[in-house]
Amino acid sequence: MRQLPLNGLIVLEFSQYLSGPSAGLRLADLGARVIKIERPQGGDPCRKLAVKNLWVDGDALNFHAINRNKESFTADLKNKEDLELVKKLIVKADVITHNFRPGVMEKIGLAYKDAKAINEKVIYAEISGFGRKGPWAQKPGQDLLVQSLSGLAYTTGNSEGPPVPFGLSAVDAISGIHLVQAVLGALIRRQREGKGAYIELSLIESAIGMQFELFTTFFHSKNGIRRSRVNNGNPLLGAPYGIYKTADHFISLAMMDLKDLAAALEWEELNAFEQRDVFQKRDEIKMQIAKKLKTNTTQFWLERLRKHGLWATTVYNWKDLTQAEGYQGLKMEQALVAGDKPIRTTRCPVTLNGEKLVSSKAAPALGAHRDAIIKQLIEE
Amino acid sequence: MRQLPLNGLIVLEFSQYLSGPSAGLRLADLGARVIKIERPQGGDPCRKLAVKNLWVDGDALNFHAINRNKESFTADLKNKEDLELVKKLIVKADVITHNFRPGVMEKIGLAYKDAKAINEKVIYAEISGFGRKGPWAQKPGQDLLVQSLSGLAYTTGNSEGPPVPFGLSAVDAISGIHLVQAVLGALIRRQREGKGAYIELSLIESAIGMQFELFTTFFHSKNGIRRSRVNNGNPLLGAPYGIYKTADHFISLAMMDLKDLAAALEWEELNAFEQRDVFQKRDEIKMQIAKKLKTNTTQFWLERLRKHGLWATTVYNWKDLTQAEGYQGLKMEQALVAGDKPIRTTRCPVTLNGEKLVSSKAAPALGAHRDAIIKQLIEE
Repeated sequence: MRQLPLNGLIVLEFSQYLSGPSAGLRLADLGARVIKIERPQGGDPCRKLAVKNLWVDGDALNFHAINRNKESFTADLKNKEDLELVKKLIVKADVITHNFRPGVMEKIGLAYKDAKAINEKVIYAEISGFGRKGPWAQKPGQDLLVQSLSGLAYTTGNSEGPPVPFGLSAVDAISGIHLVQAVLGALIRRQREGKGAYIELSLIESAIGMQFELFTTFFHSKNGIRRSRVNNGNPLLGAPYGIYKTADHFISLAMMDLKDLAAALEWEELNAFEQRDVFQKRDEIKMQIAKKLKTNTTQFWLERLRKHGLWATTVYNWKDLTQAEGYQGLKMEQALVAGDKPIRTTRCPVTLNGEKLVSSKAAPALGAHRDAIIKQLIEE
Repeated sequence: MRQLPLNGLIVLEFSQYLSGPSAGLRLADLGARVIKIERPQGGDPCRKLAVKNLWVDGDALNFHAINRNKESFTADLKNKEDLELVKKLIVKADVITHNFRPGVMEKIGLAYKDAKAINEKVIYAEISGFGRKGPWAQKPGQDLLVQSLSGLAYTTGNSEGPPVPFGLSAVDAISGIHLVQAVLGALIRRQREGKGAYIELSLIESAIGMQFELFTTFFHSKNGIRRSRVNNGNPLLGAPYGIYKTADHFISLAMMDLKDLAAALEWEELNAFEQRDVFQKRDEIKMQIAKKLKTNTTQFWLERLRKHGLWATTVYNWKDLTQAEGYQGLKMEQALVAGDKPIRTTRCPVTLNGEKLVSSKAAPALGAHRDAIIKQLIEE
């Protein structure tokens, strides 16, 4: 049996939706035993949040993607007996995670101080939307709302257009991984010194942390930060950085010197601009580039850019990518079986000692492991 | 002195730019001693990659944001004596990270097998663009290009528009944190079993992993995945999810039932749609909502939505956010001193045992610690 780093460790996941459970997903990928503590009525609400009406065995496909490789223990935390069972589980737990609103765990009697009283060495990690204190503490901690308040929506799209959110729950994702990082750090310290830890993280702090380059630049910049007027790639970067329309598709241009671009495209007019103009005259330069690139195909431009060693690529959607020649070799997929229906999903991106971190155990049905866990972890 | 989880651990950072160094940043925040190994001519190229022409002490402000709290050891890896010095450092190192192109470290003689021969227990972590093998292995591993090939640019913006990249280096950022997670997992295992580890990660795997919900849905969806025609928030989510223009600004609407939205806005016409239409008739519903929301101010709508407990918010840019009432209490900033000029930047988002993880040591000048390190880690 494969020796994974977190083998033997038990994580109690009180978390719901994405930010907390994505942390549990990563911990499970590293070998931890992750037990979801779910309320008997419905469990993690994500079970019922079916995107595109896709379901597997009565639970949303998306729930399966996030919660593969975990166990499910049902407990009504407002019920005295169930609460006692959960406290007995805490005795055996190494890590606890939750993403309830501030105050909820205190009311239940499972805040860090309560968990610590039961198990002094426990690593207790909580994600909130906006922290435990202050005027925002009761705001709903939802990805799009945090993106919107954190400035993130002004990094994307063009300057004359509206703020544009990242089209996936990037803040939830980043927060989950920050939580993992902190939990693992705390486990390292615990192995050395025997101490537990209390870890706090909020979506807004993660969202700001994710934009650390932007904020640092903003703090020192007299004129603020603005997206390109056209073909914005990153507000902090000069021309040509961005995605451009071609005659038949699109092309991405990363950082490159203007004179090299001019040479590659055999386009003398671009030399009217100096390299130092790439920020001050960004919009103007990009508009010229946009006009030029529309005049031929993506392939035509890529051949020339690559001949000069310039960083450019075509643009794929998911269908293009999964059919592209380099995709299969990445071995990014894994198949899970839930009931009798295989679920095709992706694996943890990390390769450890030459082995991809795959785990083919599907997400648990609600409460599927309650009895076994009571026998194994509580009664013995 | 504060006991941080990774105190006493030494990380040799051969990485450049963002993906690798952002991992080093996180390891340093957790208390590790991170030593950048940089070539004498120029060092990490990020030192010269000044966004908006912002410099501190001759290095780009951005370099300072990414590399605070680290040391710098200059070494020309093609020079025999310098290479010997670096190998002696490897004896003392716990972790090595690099993000050179596949083949570079092999040529130098510092691949994993070489490092392992010097220090059997070393944790060796490398980030590439597209993996070590296959037809993409020599493609430049640059954030925008990986976003473009990974499908990510089709999550954002509206369906009739072009693919839109995330306006920050999200793939670099996520990859860095995945690397940290793997390194910490390996350290936990090493503490238990004494073994080192070889960790591989590529930007493309991270980018696909980041979109795990999208790919899983794509694999099971007959009709593919498409952004909303208007006000796209997330291709996987139904109406109203997205950012909308109001009479005076913008507003974000997260998940909510249509009938609740209709009630909150006192807008009977919306009840012409059923909740099950939120995906099938997404564009139509969103267009109606967009029209409606233009007719009054953000504040007007927020009052009504909040009264009904619906998840909505205004949209901030960085200036709005840093001036907003809840921002100061987050204490997300820290000040570093480089030379005599203070650098205002953000801190690691994690709070550990009630303490924010701040570190006020500025990024190192090129080679600033070479002599001290030779004395302390090599000669003794």
